[in-house]
Amino acid sequence: MSKFLVINAGSSSIKWSLFNENLVNEAKGIAQRIKMPMGILTLDYNNEKIEEDLPLPTFLEAVKQLEKQWENHGIIKNYSEISQVAFRIVNGGPFLRDTCEVNDKNIEYLQESIDLAPVHNPGAIEAILAFQKIMPNVKKTLHFDTSFHKSIGEVEYTYPINKSLSDKLNLRKYGFHGLNYNFVTEKMEQILNKKPLNLVILHIGSGASLCAIQNSKSIDTSMGFTPLAGIMMGTRSGDIDPSLIPYIMKHENMDIDDVMKMLNEKSGMLGVSQISSDARDIQLQRKTNPQAKFTLDLYIRRISDYLIKYLNRIDGKIDAIVFTAGVGENDHYIRLNTIKNIKLLKLEIDEVLNKDRSYGEYKLISTANSEIPIYIVRANEELFIVKDAKNFFNNKN
Amino acid sequence: MSKFLVINAGSSSIKWSLFNENLVNEAKGIAQRIKMPMGILTLDYNNEKIEEDLPLPTFLEAVKQLEKQWENHGIIKNYSEISQVAFRIVNGGPFLRDTCEVNDKNIEYLQESIDLAPVHNPGAIEAILAFQKIMPNVKKTLHFDTSFHKSIGEVEYTYPINKSLSDKLNLRKYGFHGLNYNFVTEKMEQILNKKPLNLVILHIGSGASLCAIQNSKSIDTSMGFTPLAGIMMGTRSGDIDPSLIPYIMKHENMDIDDVMKMLNEKSGMLGVSQISSDARDIQLQRKTNPQAKFTLDLYIRRISDYLIKYLNRIDGKIDAIVFTAGVGENDHYIRLNTIKNIKLLKLEIDEVLNKDRSYGEYKLISTANSEIPIYIVRANEELFIVKDAKNFFNNKN
Repeated sequence: MSKFLVINAGSSSIKWSLFNENLVNEAKGIAQRIKMPMGILTLDYNNEKIEEDLPLPTFLEAVKQLEKQWENHGIIKNYSEISQVAFRIVNGGPFLRDTCEVNDKNIEYLQESIDLAPVHNPGAIEAILAFQKIMPNVKKTLHFDTSFHKSIGEVEYTYPINKSLSDKLNLRKYGFHGLNYNFVTEKMEQILNKKPLNLVILHIGSGASLCAIQNSKSIDTSMGFTPLAGIMMGTRSGDIDPSLIPYIMKHENMDIDDVMKMLNEKSGMLGVSQISSDARDIQLQRKTNPQAKFTLDLYIRRISDYLIKYLNRIDGKIDAIVFTAGVGENDHYIRLNTIKNIKLLKLEIDEVLNKDRSYGEYKLISTANSEIPIYIVRANEELFIVKDAKNFFNNKN
Repeated sequence: MSKFLVINAGSSSIKWSLFNENLVNEAKGIAQRIKMPMGILTLDYNNEKIEEDLPLPTFLEAVKQLEKQWENHGIIKNYSEISQVAFRIVNGGPFLRDTCEVNDKNIEYLQESIDLAPVHNPGAIEAILAFQKIMPNVKKTLHFDTSFHKSIGEVEYTYPINKSLSDKLNLRKYGFHGLNYNFVTEKMEQILNKKPLNLVILHIGSGASLCAIQNSKSIDTSMGFTPLAGIMMGTRSGDIDPSLIPYIMKHENMDIDDVMKMLNEKSGMLGVSQISSDARDIQLQRKTNPQAKFTLDLYIRRISDYLIKYLNRIDGKIDAIVFTAGVGENDHYIRLNTIKNIKLLKLEIDEVLNKDRSYGEYKLISTANSEIPIYIVRANEELFIVKDAKNFFNNKN
């Protein structure tokens, strides 16, 4: 048996998905609180959810404990059943833009790009090194959230700043969520039985962005050099007047790191609502707390402003508008009001379909009157990654 | 005779316009290089342009020299002919948003808001104090570029950051160029013989912004807490990923002031083209220098992205799209290509009218096929200010 393992590591966590040789998901879970006093292993297998507390002092120990857990629950006998490990990487920097094998040179590039993904890359590197140690001979690949955005043109990826500095420091839009944008684009090609497609995809989760897709290729996206840019998110501000930064530093006696932390972790839904970073918590208070309602209005405004911008970017027929990821898939109010804000096109959501929560991998939520069909597609970057990992070696041989 | 004087002071300059009692402009000029080793007085009077070099060690001395210059050229006998002085103020902060009289309290507010307009306000205050000293009994008023944007709603003026901090520091969109937006809106009401109007106005000068106008009131504008935000400008970047700031600080060993200076003074057209901040200089190389062409493409992309966003904001019929200010009035290439980037509406510029440079105060440049008429209107914030100054006392009495 040859199994495929997809790894998405963060600063103190390893999120994993195990696929069989037909690329069907068999189990998934997370090792959390790595390096903290007590760790947690959660497992989702055979329709059962299991949580175990145990010390996970290092990424290496976490990887060892995962093997034991999988053996204990009869998922696999041991790691020898795994034939490929595929790692999701948020940003590999300017030199790692395409899916590639794990090797010393590529790990070095990742280390050089830590500043570009300071929250994610250090954990990813530790996870890669742990799997290298434990299963040195298993094929391993890196899959980048920036790859899908390689097709973005120079006019769209360039910042209007000093060119010498941009060139020297590789200051440019990278864009993120590319693995899921790629997944959703291919899914929509199946659904509409047409390719290539022109789409605007709204990946609205805790981190959130939009992507304009022309001929099934990304032509622009709302995140930038880092995931801070673009629309308002769970805890990130998105676009702001950059002059707020020095003003806050001066008047609050904060240093640049404090302000950036505030913009990344204490802003967005959380900062504006002062309730939660989670749209569900804010929705609960929408009718009773004016600040909750206001937070949603602001959030929706900033999404719809990017939506109209990207709809305007596409040449020719737009095949669909697609909502995906946690909020995009589950919040009918945000979907409805985002679309209502688009005044220049005749878009129409079917409110019954939009509110009905029963659906499989995708659902059409617009009426026949809508100038552009509107869909929900369940995010599944793991499935894209595992296919990409398998193809990587197939195409090589 | 009662003359009206409009003053627009910068860090080392006093731009002035003198109007007669019928609010017809009689003369204008600039005192430049105040506090520098040698100053310059330029005068535009009776179709003649005069330039004189002389020392202007202080704003007070500059104001004294202006009186001599006007006497020498027979414009007025002396300052006693002036009945009102109206000062343009970029940003009076959170407490000065409406046209008001010059008094100690208001000067104090201006001083408190220096951080919000560090380039303009100190010079403006020095100019006000100089005129206070020299003509203490003449009526003086303050006119704010932020006033017209008071009608912007909370969803549009709020940044998606920590609410406590926003409230404490009054972090919000102010918006600028309001005096000219107000002028152009009233001008368009005359031209179309209709009011109120729905407009998108593009004020594209060295500093540049767009404004969405519903029922003759500003509902949003592209500049923000400061004039750095929004579209790409002569030397300012406009919107960027805020995370570029800490990244540049760290990798170039720059402090926050250095980076903000770079974003305000060495970015935009100048930074990208590495030729000039002036669109005219870049146009000269458009066909021979790919970087000049690229700079214009980037500039136009960022204008058209805001244009579609604001066109989408307006409820009901949009009465006109209006270009104003230096670049907006004079660069037919930028106008044509900005409009070509709007794909969701059928807009059509008449290329002959667009290129023809002969016009008076305004010109229609779209064809009859255009879904929305497109105009050029010559910027004239001074005329708006002088009317506003006269009305201020008329309405009071």
